[in-house]
Amino acid sequence: MDDPAFDVLRVLDEGGGSAPADTITASLGIPRSRVTEAVDRLRALGYAIAEPRKDLYQLTKRSGRLLPYEIQKHLGTKFIGRRMKYLETTESTTWIARDLACRQDPAQLHGTMVIAEEQTGGQGRLGRAWASPPGGIWTTIILAPKIPIDRVFMVTMAAAIAVARAVRKDLDLGALIKWPNDIFIGDKKVAGLLLELSAENAVVNYTLLGLGIDANISIARLDPGLRAAVTSLSAELGREVDRPAFLATVLREFERHYELLEAGEYEAIVREWRSLSLTLGHRVRITTLAKTFEGEAVDIDEFGALLVRKETGAVERVIAGDCRHI
Amino acid sequence: MDDPAFDVLRVLDEGGGSAPADTITASLGIPRSRVTEAVDRLRALGYAIAEPRKDLYQLTKRSGRLLPYEIQKHLGTKFIGRRMKYLETTESTTWIARDLACRQDPAQLHGTMVIAEEQTGGQGRLGRAWASPPGGIWTTIILAPKIPIDRVFMVTMAAAIAVARAVRKDLDLGALIKWPNDIFIGDKKVAGLLLELSAENAVVNYTLLGLGIDANISIARLDPGLRAAVTSLSAELGREVDRPAFLATVLREFERHYELLEAGEYEAIVREWRSLSLTLGHRVRITTLAKTFEGEAVDIDEFGALLVRKETGAVERVIAGDCRHI
Repeated sequence: MDDPAFDVLRVLDEGGGSAPADTITASLGIPRSRVTEAVDRLRALGYAIAEPRKDLYQLTKRSGRLLPYEIQKHLGTKFIGRRMKYLETTESTTWIARDLACRQDPAQLHGTMVIAEEQTGGQGRLGRAWASPPGGIWTTIILAPKIPIDRVFMVTMAAAIAVARAVRKDLDLGALIKWPNDIFIGDKKVAGLLLELSAENAVVNYTLLGLGIDANISIARLDPGLRAAVTSLSAELGREVDRPAFLATVLREFERHYELLEAGEYEAIVREWRSLSLTLGHRVRITTLAKTFEGEAVDIDEFGALLVRKETGAVERVIAGDCRHI
Repeated sequence: MDDPAFDVLRVLDEGGGSAPADTITASLGIPRSRVTEAVDRLRALGYAIAEPRKDLYQLTKRSGRLLPYEIQKHLGTKFIGRRMKYLETTESTTWIARDLACRQDPAQLHGTMVIAEEQTGGQGRLGRAWASPPGGIWTTIILAPKIPIDRVFMVTMAAAIAVARAVRKDLDLGALIKWPNDIFIGDKKVAGLLLELSAENAVVNYTLLGLGIDANISIARLDPGLRAAVTSLSAELGREVDRPAFLATVLREFERHYELLEAGEYEAIVREWRSLSLTLGHRVRITTLAKTFEGEAVDIDEFGALLVRKETGAVERVIAGDCRHI
């Protein structure tokens, strides 16, 4: 987002929310007319900017949008989200990200994010439709992981840990992880993850980590069929969440756990995942490519596979599949 | 290849190489003028068709090309190569195949092949350039495998076995497999494989199996830097190979081993791979993402990872990497 309006916004932020036009023109080396244009552009993006006296600008309300500037000012990461592509609406942030990764060297895109206010073609796992209305956080992170291919799906574990920790830390809500890739509050889903992998032979080309969080979404406005199974951060809190600040926390947590992964600290990830697991100890019905069976989810192994003890006492290892708590 | 000229060719083949024009028009229900067009088209594709007397066509020489019709008449597979897209030249059959798999349901494309007489942008592993001149066999097979993701790279093992077996069976040359994905005759490479994987979470979307075989290629015409390391089937045999018939053998062998994989008969694949291995027992230098080390290749495990015993006696498991015999 190379929108020069954000340079003006930065000067306002540095001035504690207000700045004389002179200061802005001098600080940015731009003419007065460009400042006026920038202020108009910021207002169009949802910022309220007052002029309490001639040639003084005062920021009175921030944009409600998930703008890169608003996320990045909280960010402090090394590579995650240093570059962001922001879209008002798109069919799928993952499709946009895939297109970028196909055209450019994935290593150059490591950490780049695609963010949309709304997805019109958003998908959950196994091609299921998944509502992505305005107010949520819909983003895809492009990664070029230096991780052995049999560990690469631990990226999803790192991201699940990051979301659950951010919800607990910033919002004080008891989020837990449902295997393999959902975040729940109580018995309702609040966020989901999707990892798309491209590899040649056993060498990872790139991964696309899709992240969908029901942040400020009114449950009453969701499809009736979804309401019983889904919640949102705002519904749980009774107030809206500061989405840019919250996403920045998620991204910081993710980067930290991702670095553990690249350092080969798999057991640290597995241990933390276990401590945040909703699934372990539950009776589950597992559906894989080959079959459906029930049992008790007893553990995950060092690759993130779920271990399910069946009636017979035999323990089955599930690397991919659908998991229903029963 | 829905070229109607091949219907005429089929009638000629059914007639033992010749057929009166009347028979062709009656058999196909087309006017005489369409038969003339088809014969012209076949001649343009490299078939020699004589007219020893008026209204009698006689096939005197087949096309030298790797045309779908010529492969499929030998084929007899269930799904591999039932549909083929033929190109005179392309940058990469894998790029074409990827484009198909992105636009259509991969399950509908299972077994579909892209074949080119020449690739101008062909790649080996790790993005290395790899010459793909006319005379070779350059193809990519689209698969929608029902195989757990931690077994999916065994598709490459099945394909390597298939190529080595076809070379041994049809041509009586002592082909062996160099880990992870090359076929050698003696100490020279004759074929290479590349498996591209697309997956969501741990569910395989599709794989693209790229197969390059130096079939009828004059080594003298290769880049001098390649000559010492590379051979071709024609160079080893001292005569040209019937490429369509040979490729059909490869595809039949591949389908048979692929079905073993989908049936979960992993140990059968590993056992056959071992029996065809050039690498096992050799001293090797391994380069992975993380490091380079040397040792003796002692075995592969049930996932296709190479087990290398180092000087210290410790055995290292290598799932992806470059392997040089030393």
